[in-house]
Amino acid sequence: MNLRLHSYWRSSSSWRVRIGLHLKKLPFEYRAVDLVKGGGEQWSESHRRRNPMAQVPVLEVEEGGRVLLISQSMAILEWLDERFPDPPFLPRDPEGRARVRMLAEHVNSGIQPYQNNATLKWIRDRLRGEAEAFAREFVGQGLEALEQAVREGRPPGSTFCHGTHQTLADLYLVPQLFGGRRWGVDVSRFPTLLGVERACGEIDAFRKSEPEAQPDAPPPERR
Amino acid sequence: MNLRLHSYWRSSSSWRVRIGLHLKKLPFEYRAVDLVKGGGEQWSESHRRRNPMAQVPVLEVEEGGRVLLISQSMAILEWLDERFPDPPFLPRDPEGRARVRMLAEHVNSGIQPYQNNATLKWIRDRLRGEAEAFAREFVGQGLEALEQAVREGRPPGSTFCHGTHQTLADLYLVPQLFGGRRWGVDVSRFPTLLGVERACGEIDAFRKSEPEAQPDAPPPERR
Repeated sequence: MNLRLHSYWRSSSSWRVRIGLHLKKLPFEYRAVDLVKGGGEQWSESHRRRNPMAQVPVLEVEEGGRVLLISQSMAILEWLDERFPDPPFLPRDPEGRARVRMLAEHVNSGIQPYQNNATLKWIRDRLRGEAEAFAREFVGQGLEALEQAVREGRPPGSTFCHGTHQTLADLYLVPQLFGGRRWGVDVSRFPTLLGVERACGEIDAFRKSEPEAQPDAPPPERR
Repeated sequence: MNLRLHSYWRSSSSWRVRIGLHLKKLPFEYRAVDLVKGGGEQWSESHRRRNPMAQVPVLEVEEGGRVLLISQSMAILEWLDERFPDPPFLPRDPEGRARVRMLAEHVNSGIQPYQNNATLKWIRDRLRGEAEAFAREFVGQGLEALEQAVREGRPPGSTFCHGTHQTLADLYLVPQLFGGRRWGVDVSRFPTLLGVERACGEIDAFRKSEPEAQPDAPPPERR
């Protein structure tokens, strides 16, 4: 099997999948899709053949002469977990699985769309200077609710979002906290989330997946 | 086990879960959360204890003296499918499961957030008359991409999004088409999606889940 990840260094959805691939210790080819250059390479015909939604990430799986194209980070990560169960992304009990998926979706459909390039561009084109305020407000509110959800429902002794091992929820949390800082959200109000981020920071797969470590990251002075 | 669904008649995310519960033939108590009245009951303290994100749906599961609260439609539906496997929401092969989850997420995180009440209110407060244009543009683009994704990757002979039985993808598609019409998207451009909608319309569980069939739907003249 050959894996190829179509990714952008700063895309938080691509970041989640990079963490997943590194946790499963799966080698993959990195293919950069520049979301900024020339109005965005994601709109190119070749990328839209991979994903009509014109988004990253897309995981391209070559196996037995066939090619499978999976977009949407949740679909990619659930597929990875079904095909490569170790280490697991979900707890074994149905209640724990429900809680972890709920926290991941809280970010996936409840926060990230508010910092999406296309949304912010629409606002910026009509209300100069307001796009950042929009992102800050919604990402901030979402993280505040997430802090409560993670804090209140955790099994005792948890160091991650759910228990003492990383789960899908942590793969969503870490890139979203980065997004919060980027939009000027004061993340010091979220001690539980920051604790989880510190625990993840100890894990090699999380560090290797950071935006700055990607081949398409520009040099520091141009970020 | 007792199931209680906190729902709003016109919420497309609640609608997906209603279809899921009816497909699994699970009796449940319907608890209305009025998203409109008095600024929105979802912001009440009692509802935010159920879901800090202040959203519907929330599924409340009482079992063996314990209460489990699940929010986020994907987390609820995956839980339902793990606990009550018949009829299944996902195909059995990993590739098919990936495709179905991808299509469902395409709606869940890629389209629905653009017609979300809170987003539209933010825009409406600043740009009168533009919120509807925003929803129409993004929901329209998303459905156009979905038409292509459903059409191109279907197993031969499919009547639903994936094959000849309903899957998670159909539970997301039907409420989203309704949303498209509501925002003025010309859905006649999406013949594949309309075909799937017709196939779903033959199924009792889909009909019972429609907004107008819910106890909190206002009489027709006040909709």
